[in-house]
Amino acid sequence: MTDKTSPANETIQGFLDGLASSAPTPGGGGAAAISGAMGAALLSMVCNLTIGKKKYVEVEGDLKEILGKSEALRAELTGMIADDVEAFDAVMAAYGLPKGTDEEKTARAAKIQEVLKVATDVPLACCRACRQVIDLAEAVAEKGNLNVISDAGVAVLSAHAGLRSAALNVYVNAKGLDDRGFAEERLKQLEELLGPAGPLNEKIYEVVKAKVN
Amino acid sequence: MTDKTSPANETIQGFLDGLASSAPTPGGGGAAAISGAMGAALLSMVCNLTIGKKKYVEVEGDLKEILGKSEALRAELTGMIADDVEAFDAVMAAYGLPKGTDEEKTARAAKIQEVLKVATDVPLACCRACRQVIDLAEAVAEKGNLNVISDAGVAVLSAHAGLRSAALNVYVNAKGLDDRGFAEERLKQLEELLGPAGPLNEKIYEVVKAKVN
Repeated sequence: MTDKTSPANETIQGFLDGLASSAPTPGGGGAAAISGAMGAALLSMVCNLTIGKKKYVEVEGDLKEILGKSEALRAELTGMIADDVEAFDAVMAAYGLPKGTDEEKTARAAKIQEVLKVATDVPLACCRACRQVIDLAEAVAEKGNLNVISDAGVAVLSAHAGLRSAALNVYVNAKGLDDRGFAEERLKQLEELLGPAGPLNEKIYEVVKAKVN
Repeated sequence: MTDKTSPANETIQGFLDGLASSAPTPGGGGAAAISGAMGAALLSMVCNLTIGKKKYVEVEGDLKEILGKSEALRAELTGMIADDVEAFDAVMAAYGLPKGTDEEKTARAAKIQEVLKVATDVPLACCRACRQVIDLAEAVAEKGNLNVISDAGVAVLSAHAGLRSAALNVYVNAKGLDDRGFAEERLKQLEELLGPAGPLNEKIYEVVKAKVN
């Protein structure tokens, strides 16, 4: 990684090489964030290619509003590539703490629990942002420029893959939490994000597929 | 794009900026190739973190074989980011040919048909490679190191999103083909790739989810 504080400055090839390697990061969490960010970017693209076109003047206001939201989500999801690395590194560092004395054991266990909470909330935030991309995609697939409507379909597929991918990291980290109240609350939030997303993804995909066929 | 012959040398941030912009490329086809390449890379990662571990010595031979295939697929899919740009640019160039005389009109129409065939085969090749990633993911999810098994789940989700995303571009370009025999043959191949992929994706996701929960 050329700049650890900003893995988005890594090249695509470099990121993929890192992903494939045995290095602990980047991993699936970073891939999930990129999937979500690609989804948001593609919604922005469809908006940008619809706004200003005479044929689409009636939906211009709606798409301008969506563009503001999709660009904010893209920035948020791009930042999450770094958040995932940071959260993962903190978990690894906590497991690496000394455990020679009882005092050290207690401190290590407490630290592990602390960083596991962050490592549960980071992918959950990714799930939330991906779900927002999916929700925005519905209107874009309905109202966007027909010449690039397939990109609205790719957007929803990417965001849905990002949501379900990040969900796996929520499960992994929530499982290790002693604070079951915290864990169950996060898992409840996760199911609320996941539940409607599958049917919505299929609905939007079918809308797009019907337009391109 | 810093180097048009190799968009994989673009930074992630630069690629996302280009995707979100009103520039014609990169678009959904490039995003599909990246999704597939991330899927292949994550399978390689799980293989790399399983091979050489005492606990997994029994599956080491299988995972070494898979690693060879996943790395070949990763290289192929990474190259397809450029293929998509090239195919799209060729279509745009053909539509931009002069159409003043009857001779020009005939030549332009023939060129459009020629490049649309390529623009159908390029995303179809992406679909095929993504499907191969999905097929490989099944064994990785079963045999891979449990500590990183969630990454096998992210791999299959990414590859499946890549497959369905590229499929939309096959539909778009096949629709414009006058040679219906060619088009129908490609659409038949596409359905054979897509059909079993959905159930397989869900099956592998459930295998992984059960292991991380």
